[in-house]
Amino acid sequence: MKNIHTIKVAFGDTDAAGIVFYPNFYRWMDQANHELLSKRIKPTSQLLKEGYGFPLLETHCEFKSALFFDDIVEVHSEVVELKNKVFKVQHTFVRAEETVAFGYEVRAWTVFQDGNLKAIPISDEIRAKLGFPTESTMK
Amino acid sequence: MKNIHTIKVAFGDTDAAGIVFYPNFYRWMDQANHELLSKRIKPTSQLLKEGYGFPLLETHCEFKSALFFDDIVEVHSEVVELKNKVFKVQHTFVRAEETVAFGYEVRAWTVFQDGNLKAIPISDEIRAKLGFPTESTMK
Amino acid sequence: MKNIHTIKVAFGDTDAAGIVFYPNFYRWMDQANHELLSKRIKPTSQLLKEGYGFPLLETHCEFKSALFFDDIVEVHSEVVELKNKVFKVQHTFVRAEETVAFGYEVRAWTVFQDGNLKAIPISDEIRAKLGFPTESTMK
Amino acid sequence: MKNIHTIKVAFGDTDAAGIVFYPNFYRWMDQANHELLSKRIKPTSQLLKEGYGFPLLETHCEFKSALFFDDIVEVHSEVVELKNKVFKVQHTFVRAEETVAFGYEVRAWTVFQDGNLKAIPISDEIRAKLGFPTESTMK
Repeated sequence: MKNIHTIKVAFGDTDAAGIVFYPNFYRWMDQANHELLSKRIKPTSQLLKEGYGFPLLETHCEFKSALFFDDIVEVHSEVVELKNKVFKVQHTFVRAEETVAFGYEVRAWTVFQDGNLKAIPISDEIRAKLGFPTESTMK
Repeated sequence: MKNIHTIKVAFGDTDAAGIVFYPNFYRWMDQANHELLSKRIKPTSQLLKEGYGFPLLETHCEFKSALFFDDIVEVHSEVVELKNKVFKVQHTFVRAEETVAFGYEVRAWTVFQDGNLKAIPISDEIRAKLGFPTESTMK
Repeated sequence: MKNIHTIKVAFGDTDAAGIVFYPNFYRWMDQANHELLSKRIKPTSQLLKEGYGFPLLETHCEFKSALFFDDIVEVHSEVVELKNKVFKVQHTFVRAEETVAFGYEVRAWTVFQDGNLKAIPISDEIRAKLGFPTESTMK
Repeated sequence: MKNIHTIKVAFGDTDAAGIVFYPNFYRWMDQANHELLSKRIKPTSQLLKEGYGFPLLETHCEFKSALFFDDIVEVHSEVVELKNKVFKVQHTFVRAEETVAFGYEVRAWTVFQDGNLKAIPISDEIRAKLGFPTESTMK
């Protein structure tokens, strides 16, 4: 159930040290998460229009090797934890079979209600689409 | 009636050529425009909440010298044209009295109505605040 | 001799107005220019390692329609002028056959020499690769 | 020995959810780290010219409240660990006395040598400037 999102490092992603400026790794995690949810559930642009959201609670990244302009990198993403209202997506950055970085995002599952974001339980339908047992089967 | 918005080049604003990645000049024009309108009219965060907007029609920039990490740069901004529903802001980037770049933004004055952006005439009140003769005094 | 660079609008490319934050159009022009030169001449990552560069002199963009999250956009790019040391690339942004924006970049052709960028004449070899008559055939 | 780096959320820092796009928190951590090292040691633009660097090994952030356009935010930064060749900087984001986010960066202390980055022991002089006991006083 891994999603592989491929990116090519653009010149503008680098900094004066000649390597990728590190906040871009998080930009790519966000893109990879959108792609994963879009494929498993439905396009996130549609989910957002319906009032759903998945704001960040926590993010983390460890860097093993620098990335350079024109590098082709695969972001392997997987939902590794699915709690009642919170889920965790793990991302591994791979360049030519070398893991250059890995990290994760912890996100809440929310709905926009009365002008506010409200965390709600992740439905059985979505749990199934993300490859997790539904609440009922967990009993 | 010029506004001076001062920026300090961050490390992340540079690219592997060791100089500022050029789309940042437009990011700074946008910031300078927000600061100018916020000072002359009212905070743009407030204007946006009231449904007003000022989307881009055209932008332009000419580059004379590269900018480097830690450079202190002044963006001198001025509304140089104010038509019925459109205005033009000119921006000049100055580092230690040297003009390093200059450009402009042409923006429409709009209101968010029935789910759409609609260009509307710039009111006499706003014309006066931007230092331009009001429609009535123009007669 | 047009290059078509396809981009998909990421969530992070948008701003609180719900549309693409405009400096991203220039980021995409830069990417499209890299792709065009990489295909016609050689990978720009290689050109840069050899000491060549193509810094910006002037950029321009006109905006016809806003872009939204998840939009698929083609950037059609073409070298439309090739002077002795300067070239101009035109970029047209097309979403579902609608031109949403168009602009251009004017760039110098340079080499890094003795710690400085120096504009040099664009060689006959490169002129040919970009689809322009060589100096000699121009006589 | 805390450094306080103040930022104002720009319109371009937000996304279509109306809040700050999260990789910007890391961009601000990077800026805050540069400011802290620049004040304690010497301008980081100078350190980089001398061949020193401080690449990332690990970064982390936890988000408590969303940030909005025009918010004024203080980033409180402090070196909380200083090992032989590695240091950890903690960053706390404060808006009007509310902690909206906190995170950290773990960085190596390196020198650029023979075309490569090489981690080296942090000198007694720098240890002292960062408010830590020198190796010799630790004995």
